[in-house]
Amino acid sequence: MNFQSLQNFSLSLRNNKLFELFVVAIIIISALLIGAKTYRVPDHYLSIIRILDWVVTLIFLFEICIRFIADEEKKRFFTKGWNIFDSLIVIISLIPIEDSEMAFVGRLVRIFRVLRMISIVPELRVLLNSLLKALPQLGYVVLLMFIIFYIYAAIGSTIFGAINPELWRDITISMLTLFRVMTFEDWTDVMYETMAVYPFSWIYYLSFIFLTAFAFLNMVIGIVVSVLEDEHAKEREEKEAAEGKPTIEDLSRQIEELKLMISESRKVD
Amino acid sequence: MNFQSLQNFSLSLRNNKLFELFVVAIIIISALLIGAKTYRVPDHYLSIIRILDWVVTLIFLFEICIRFIADEEKKRFFTKGWNIFDSLIVIISLIPIEDSEMAFVGRLVRIFRVLRMISIVPELRVLLNSLLKALPQLGYVVLLMFIIFYIYAAIGSTIFGAINPELWRDITISMLTLFRVMTFEDWTDVMYETMAVYPFSWIYYLSFIFLTAFAFLNMVIGIVVSVLEDEHAKEREEKEAAEGKPTIEDLSRQIEELKLMISESRKVD
Amino acid sequence: MNFQSLQNFSLSLRNNKLFELFVVAIIIISALLIGAKTYRVPDHYLSIIRILDWVVTLIFLFEICIRFIADEEKKRFFTKGWNIFDSLIVIISLIPIEDSEMAFVGRLVRIFRVLRMISIVPELRVLLNSLLKALPQLGYVVLLMFIIFYIYAAIGSTIFGAINPELWRDITISMLTLFRVMTFEDWTDVMYETMAVYPFSWIYYLSFIFLTAFAFLNMVIGIVVSVLEDEHAKEREEKEAAEGKPTIEDLSRQIEELKLMISESRKVD
Amino acid sequence: MNFQSLQNFSLSLRNNKLFELFVVAIIIISALLIGAKTYRVPDHYLSIIRILDWVVTLIFLFEICIRFIADEEKKRFFTKGWNIFDSLIVIISLIPIEDSEMAFVGRLVRIFRVLRMISIVPELRVLLNSLLKALPQLGYVVLLMFIIFYIYAAIGSTIFGAINPELWRDITISMLTLFRVMTFEDWTDVMYETMAVYPFSWIYYLSFIFLTAFAFLNMVIGIVVSVLEDEHAKEREEKEAAEGKPTIEDLSRQIEELKLMISESRKVD
Repeated sequence: MNFQSLQNFSLSLRNNKLFELFVVAIIIISALLIGAKTYRVPDHYLSIIRILDWVVTLIFLFEICIRFIADEEKKRFFTKGWNIFDSLIVIISLIPIEDSEMAFVGRLVRIFRVLRMISIVPELRVLLNSLLKALPQLGYVVLLMFIIFYIYAAIGSTIFGAINPELWRDITISMLTLFRVMTFEDWTDVMYETMAVYPFSWIYYLSFIFLTAFAFLNMVIGIVVSVLEDEHAKEREEKEAAEGKPTIEDLSRQIEELKLMISESRKVD
Repeated sequence: MNFQSLQNFSLSLRNNKLFELFVVAIIIISALLIGAKTYRVPDHYLSIIRILDWVVTLIFLFEICIRFIADEEKKRFFTKGWNIFDSLIVIISLIPIEDSEMAFVGRLVRIFRVLRMISIVPELRVLLNSLLKALPQLGYVVLLMFIIFYIYAAIGSTIFGAINPELWRDITISMLTLFRVMTFEDWTDVMYETMAVYPFSWIYYLSFIFLTAFAFLNMVIGIVVSVLEDEHAKEREEKEAAEGKPTIEDLSRQIEELKLMISESRKVD
Repeated sequence: MNFQSLQNFSLSLRNNKLFELFVVAIIIISALLIGAKTYRVPDHYLSIIRILDWVVTLIFLFEICIRFIADEEKKRFFTKGWNIFDSLIVIISLIPIEDSEMAFVGRLVRIFRVLRMISIVPELRVLLNSLLKALPQLGYVVLLMFIIFYIYAAIGSTIFGAINPELWRDITISMLTLFRVMTFEDWTDVMYETMAVYPFSWIYYLSFIFLTAFAFLNMVIGIVVSVLEDEHAKEREEKEAAEGKPTIEDLSRQIEELKLMISESRKVD
Repeated sequence: MNFQSLQNFSLSLRNNKLFELFVVAIIIISALLIGAKTYRVPDHYLSIIRILDWVVTLIFLFEICIRFIADEEKKRFFTKGWNIFDSLIVIISLIPIEDSEMAFVGRLVRIFRVLRMISIVPELRVLLNSLLKALPQLGYVVLLMFIIFYIYAAIGSTIFGAINPELWRDITISMLTLFRVMTFEDWTDVMYETMAVYPFSWIYYLSFIFLTAFAFLNMVIGIVVSVLEDEHAKEREEKEAAEGKPTIEDLSRQIEELKLMISESRKVD
């Protein structure tokens, strides 16, 4: 009985709009604290920041407990990605860190608390989901891009390795250099250097730029528009179904009924 | 009676195409004056510019008065954004400014007079409105981008702060540096500098570029196309309605009438 | 009679596929000659190039004469843009140029002979026309962009003029600098320079980049897609009309006929 | 009889999912070997790499033999592009190469073995085909771009050739410089250099950027979206046909039947 009333209280608190706004405010304060720590602040301010940090951690702990108690099915609570993420962030924040090395990790973990914004605001979660939905379709595009990168990097480090080891030493460094070329970042400096030895090496760079830039553009636009059109088609169908507008199928059924009526009237005759 | 005729005169003047062209010409002259002032001009030309500037201000004052008098409902005049903007620009231009500090502000205000072009030309106003309509939908995208920027900036200033304070001193400067990386502006210089200390820091830059560039592209295209399709669907419906073409609903109604006719004819039998 | 046969001969020659290919080949040779002249070639080759250049000019003259004679309506010949362009290019090429200054102009004119490729190949002409069709719709976008550029350039040269006259001297130079910022070309160098004096001047650059880059992207995509959809809708309608598929209007007419039949059959009763 | 059973064995092996995965694994190992060779590895590792390389070549030879034996029509085997590609790669890998010059070619050939990934994974082959399908439509766009580049390069090397021979020496180098300008790579450095001699040369650069960047963007997006819409229209039609939904034509036929029934019933009367 006692637990039941606690659960009801938690549920009403979790669904309370004001409580949600309060948590959002706490996340923003947490983000500001993270930002403040990057500035050179006097020591007494630093201790205030540390206290506020603990307050934020405790409120987060309280909020996750409320959410856990409010949940109908306790077993399924930790199967949801965001719940696991929120819990992990809070638990790691709770571990007291004294020595400097762990403090560094602790600070990094606190930064990821800003991501809780996405787990709280529903619109951001929808946005992220629509992005993730396009990912599997992009998988093979990324693989194709990687193959192009790998082949060009292997050729590059084989031919240009002796010219500038800084850029073409091994296949990893060469791929980084090619990514730089793909973003057009001082790519002519890279090209002119190798053109001094191999005058026709511009073919290597131009073919690479065309293959990656064009293929990439072509495919990304294609996939984005296709995902979008699917969504629109679905929306339109749902809308039409909801409005109860007659479809061509309805018309067909109506005409069939007409035929039946006429044939019946003939029988009557 | 006297005021009524004044209002009628104002109304006819305001709706006059020639008067509109005249105002557009004055705005262009005003823009040219602003441009001319940025060149090193001899003193006697400068005084001509100053006189012309006053003439422009007075014509603007005259035009806004005409528009105010012509308006049917005086109270609603200042609820429209462009009217407030136009009035403010004229009033601030009227304040005589002598000392150098205020003169600076005065010059800046005069520059914004070019924006009156948008308030006068209807096509530009339509363009701006369609842009503003897409803004609220972009709000959450901007928020998501800001969260990504904030987290990476916090990590960046924590880890790289000691390497180059110029670029990673605090969270604000780090965000500016990350914006630079996002525009591919000499981003490899920034990366190579930190790679000298942390050889794996290229993961930080590449993941950031993928997250922002791809997410941004994906979402902007998505929203633009979706806004566009909505408009097209609306246009098509309006066009069909205007042309009086029969819809599937009309067909359904016609068939229902047929059924009624047949069942009636049966009753007659 | 004699002229009639000449016209017929010209017409058959003009419509001959082989003759068209021959002209395309001559244009390509003309382009190669232009390219060859930019290399350092020995003097005896130069005289060969000069002779070939004259041959090309004479063939072009011959071809334009054939086209003029073949044309049914001589008066309308010079109302078509491409005919005027072709004739002008040939006539200017004919003028003998000796002194070095005119030779320079003559060389430039010969370069534009490559554009004859577009006037000959129909597919290229279609491509260019579809580009030109989108231009008027882009007119107001370009005007809006220009207003944004003008205002920012005026502010820039007012505030930053004293910091670096090379970049912000007057409004023209400032607009060029802003165009550079818009293409992300070493824009941080420009920004860091002014940030040393005005630490908040990054607001100026970031707001400018957002306004131009985003507005531009938004509108260009919008217009491209909208032009495209119009074409598709037109194509679809034409296709459906050509295939003789029944439309909803046809159905409506058919049902009306049915009603008439039934009401008539009732009268008969 | 003996060959028939061999063929059956080959066929079952070729269609075996595990065998396909094994070949993919071998290709990945082959790719890793290529990558490993770009690093500075101790000599005894190098001999291991050489042995593994031979193992990979032999497995590839075995796999292509299996595919050849399994094929029903031996004559058509070498008409398929990927079969020719695979065979060529294997045969060249088999040639024993000792001297350093041929070894260089041998290494390059081994790099292209990574491309076998595309010939094995069906999804990648589909992706590549959809890219190749858009190519012919892009042909004329590329031709138009090339004409713009050629004309600007001819003008550039004529006017700017004396200013900086490094960038504007002849038409080939000028086209490379213009490609650099198109990618916005330090293009202002190129421009400022010529503006020192010809102050109005910014017109040359800006008009070039507008022509190429805008024309390119406009056309690429246009073609991508149009290819996409065609595919979607096809898919939709196929889907509707498969679902057996009534079309407007079906309705028209139904109404015609109704008319027939009524006119018959009248005759009966």
